Amino acid sequence: MSEVSMLQEIWTEYRTDIDAALESYLDLGPNCPTKLQEAMHYSLMAGGKRLRPVLVLLACEACGGKAVDALPAACAIEMIHTYSLIHDDLPAMDDDDVRRGKPTNHKQFGEAMAILAGDALLTLAFQIVAQDVQPQDVAAACCADLAGAAGAAGMVAGQVADLEAEDSGIKDIQHLEGIHRRKTGRLLSCALSLGARIAGADWELRNHLVEYGKSVGLAFQIADDLLDVSGNSETIGKQTQKDADHGKLTYPSLLGIEESRDKAKQLIQDAHERLKPLGEQGQRLAALADFIIDRDH
Amino acid sequence: MSEVSMLQEIWTEYRTDIDAALESYLDLGPNCPTKLQEAMHYSLMAGGKRLRPVLVLLACEACGGKAVDALPAACAIEMIHTYSLIHDDLPAMDDDDVRRGKPTNHKQFGEAMAILAGDALLTLAFQIVAQDVQPQDVAAACCADLAGAAGAAGMVAGQVADLEAEDSGIKDIQHLEGIHRRKTGRLLSCALSLGARIAGADWELRNHLVEYGKSVGLAFQIADDLLDVSGNSETIGKQTQKDADHGKLTYPSLLGIEESRDKAKQLIQDAHERLKPLGEQGQRLAALADFIIDRDH
Repeated sequence: MSEVSMLQEIWTEYRTDIDAALESYLDLGPNCPTKLQEAMHYSLMAGGKRLRPVLVLLACEACGGKAVDALPAACAIEMIHTYSLIHDDLPAMDDDDVRRGKPTNHKQFGEAMAILAGDALLTLAFQIVAQDVQPQDVAAACCADLAGAAGAAGMVAGQVADLEAEDSGIKDIQHLEGIHRRKTGRLLSCALSLGARIAGADWELRNHLVEYGKSVGLAFQIADDLLDVSGNSETIGKQTQKDADHGKLTYPSLLGIEESRDKAKQLIQDAHERLKPLGEQGQRLAALADFIIDRDH
Repeated sequence: MSEVSMLQEIWTEYRTDIDAALESYLDLGPNCPTKLQEAMHYSLMAGGKRLRPVLVLLACEACGGKAVDALPAACAIEMIHTYSLIHDDLPAMDDDDVRRGKPTNHKQFGEAMAILAGDALLTLAFQIVAQDVQPQDVAAACCADLAGAAGAAGMVAGQVADLEAEDSGIKDIQHLEGIHRRKTGRLLSCALSLGARIAGADWELRNHLVEYGKSVGLAFQIADDLLDVSGNSETIGKQTQKDADHGKLTYPSLLGIEESRDKAKQLIQDAHERLKPLGEQGQRLAALADFIIDRDH
């Protein structure tokens, strides 16, 4: 069995665990209004790939920890990812009607509920990490990590820079990387950091994994841009060619398709380098890096 | 000097410390876009009363802790309060143009930036508590507390219930209390809980303070409703009579002005009862409870 098919097998298994844990975290008791719970559930359980939570579990195992201990942090990061999609899709932002082949949250539940469902998912993420990650000092460190990655100097900053880029017309590769590093890169590398923290990895190993995460994150974004040019909306479940039609900054539009592919490959090589200190324990993360640029959705 | 003037003196002093700490927390480095930082600053430094952070500091001191140790948590709770105002004011929600005598955040910076500034303030709140509250196990407990109070079974639930009430036309006192308990009560009583935790108070004392917070929070809301009927927009800095004009559920509309006043007074008495175990150390919190129903803005 190839490394990639072994990865796919464990991914399927992890995904089942993650989905079950997410479902149980959405059981918020009688104080949570039904409509709010439905709106949170709708987007959180819409069938995402669960890339970020899978990375948390893989990083934890690669550092000698147990995946089950990393499950709360895995759920938290998926909630933050989902909240960001709900808010980014809003009419005032990217104004998207379709996400993962379904109406976006505000199309289904209205704008007010979509804003609030996003707010609630973001908040719940911190509650879960603070309550369920053990020991408590690791919980606090994970909360700080997650907030740094998601906040005003991380993911939110990336979304602001992305919106500003559309207006400003600045089109250079440094600018584009600055957007992606913050908009998707910080949260993705945070997944690795959380897994390493929960496994009790030392600073050096955690740093290698964070750097692996940065490379994989950027490669993932380039692959996404490439899929937008070459994919079709049935396979990837959202409107394709939309970025290009909006004149949005993408790797293919700046570097061309071939150079974008080369860049993604180089990044995956960098990611592999960072896994060397892990030896055999890094195999699944290595397979995941390869999978990133070979996927078709 | 009366208890209330002593409170006003310490409040002014605390407010200076809180404002300085908030300013320094908004220094987010080069990764935070200037416009985002401006939008966060605009609402956070718009001259709020700082009731919630002052409660954190008073509760910490009342339990024998140092106010300075509670300053990070005080800033965090003010950020969460501010984020909730920014999002509540959005066109999709309460659609307000004026807040604290100034244009609301989305009127000043546009809807996208207002949504993102709110998201960033919420996230920053957790980062501050996780990083700066000591020791780390108390930091994790404070994060969990704050998230529980602000989230899908707390403040966000209250806002959803409030929006739903406008549509449903349900007009009874249980329903109204259910809204306020979650929309404002949970976060306000959380302020007390955070202060008590940071001072190392035991569960029983913390519980008394949380109950004090519930009573004061509801009294504060009733006083707000009463000001909306009798105040003028110059003193309180927002559109008055607006709630009534929107047919919004309020205490005076359900109970009448006199009965609403009596209810607020009863709640303040309940709050005083809860402070008895603190003895002299509870004096400032007692004065604050009295101040709540005597204020004119």
